[in-house]
Amino acid sequence: LEQFTREDALRREGYRHACHIMLYGDSSAKLFGKIPIKHIVLMQMRFDGLLGFPGGLVNPSKETLEAGLSRELHEEVGVAVPVGVDNHVSSCLSPSCPQLITHFYIKKMTEAELREIERAAVAAATDHGLEVLGMVRVPLYFLKNGGGLPYFLSHSFISNSRAQLLSALQRCRLLSQGELEKAVRQAEQMRRTNSGDPH
Amino acid sequence: LEQFTREDALRREGYRHACHIMLYGDSSAKLFGKIPIKHIVLMQMRFDGLLGFPGGLVNPSKETLEAGLSRELHEEVGVAVPVGVDNHVSSCLSPSCPQLITHFYIKKMTEAELREIERAAVAAATDHGLEVLGMVRVPLYFLKNGGGLPYFLSHSFISNSRAQLLSALQRCRLLSQGELEKAVRQAEQMRRTNSGDPH
Repeated sequence: LEQFTREDALRREGYRHACHIMLYGDSSAKLFGKIPIKHIVLMQMRFDGLLGFPGGLVNPSKETLEAGLSRELHEEVGVAVPVGVDNHVSSCLSPSCPQLITHFYIKKMTEAELREIERAAVAAATDHGLEVLGMVRVPLYFLKNGGGLPYFLSHSFISNSRAQLLSALQRCRLLSQGELEKAVRQAEQMRRTNSGDPH
Repeated sequence: LEQFTREDALRREGYRHACHIMLYGDSSAKLFGKIPIKHIVLMQMRFDGLLGFPGGLVNPSKETLEAGLSRELHEEVGVAVPVGVDNHVSSCLSPSCPQLITHFYIKKMTEAELREIERAAVAAATDHGLEVLGMVRVPLYFLKNGGGLPYFLSHSFISNSRAQLLSALQRCRLLSQGELEKAVRQAEQMRRTNSGDPH
């Protein structure tokens, strides 16, 4: 995917812009009282049935990318989440839409703030049950037979959001390169195995 | 899958029992102000990264199947949801676990009751962020290129829950046989296409 700086991307004419963000934080909770959850990473089930990050289309002639992303977040997660240029991590051509540049952001929050976002997403967000079918946390641990991150990665994702997730997990050092490769390998195996499954 | 009546299943010795439920209702909401949502159907992202219905293991020597399912629902969705024998629809051998019988239930609720369950699942459920990573609604409409139900069905599901979903949609007449076949066909095509995708 062709990469741009934020500034170069904004200088291009004739392109639309979409901004998405990974909201994440640390957690000391343990699954079944013994498996460390380690981190909370929020994604969502979108109206089209695919998994993706919160965000949406932004018109840079009317608002900054970050103000537009904050506006989309308010509609989708129900609370104001300030986003700054310092949260920007990458801009690239969309692999699925022509003439679209996708900007990706990452923001670290506390466990309490993330929980408040999950609450507001159901209780206050105008998009709940419409553009957003639900917020989900990404499991970052490994259970038996592919349970955890590998099973999660075997789902269907919008555009390059699965690649954005993997790249962000590496950038934020939430998982090692070896763990990410193992998860991707197991996810592909599961996707192949269950392809054409009569279930 | 070998099917039993509820009574025959309970008479079998040496088996464990699991109960799951589809909570659903009607909605007059419209996506983008024009595409009818028609119905709300609740599923969840499980701790293992797979999609499934709320529920879990029940010990019939200690509680009825329905009382056990209500208990599991309280842990997972945060509110008491009464379940009766009249909500039972099928019992069969689990395709993924030996010596396990899975019982499936369906309960119709109002849109307001379903929304209250989604709120409580985040705000009050003890399992939130642990055994349950989030509740999601199932899209029952068809958008362009497989968006909606087909994309949703291309995800990874626990055990026979995808088959339970399809069978319940037919039983409750939420979709026609033709619509279900179209959705399954498109989902399988998407799963094959994206298998081994380097994204």
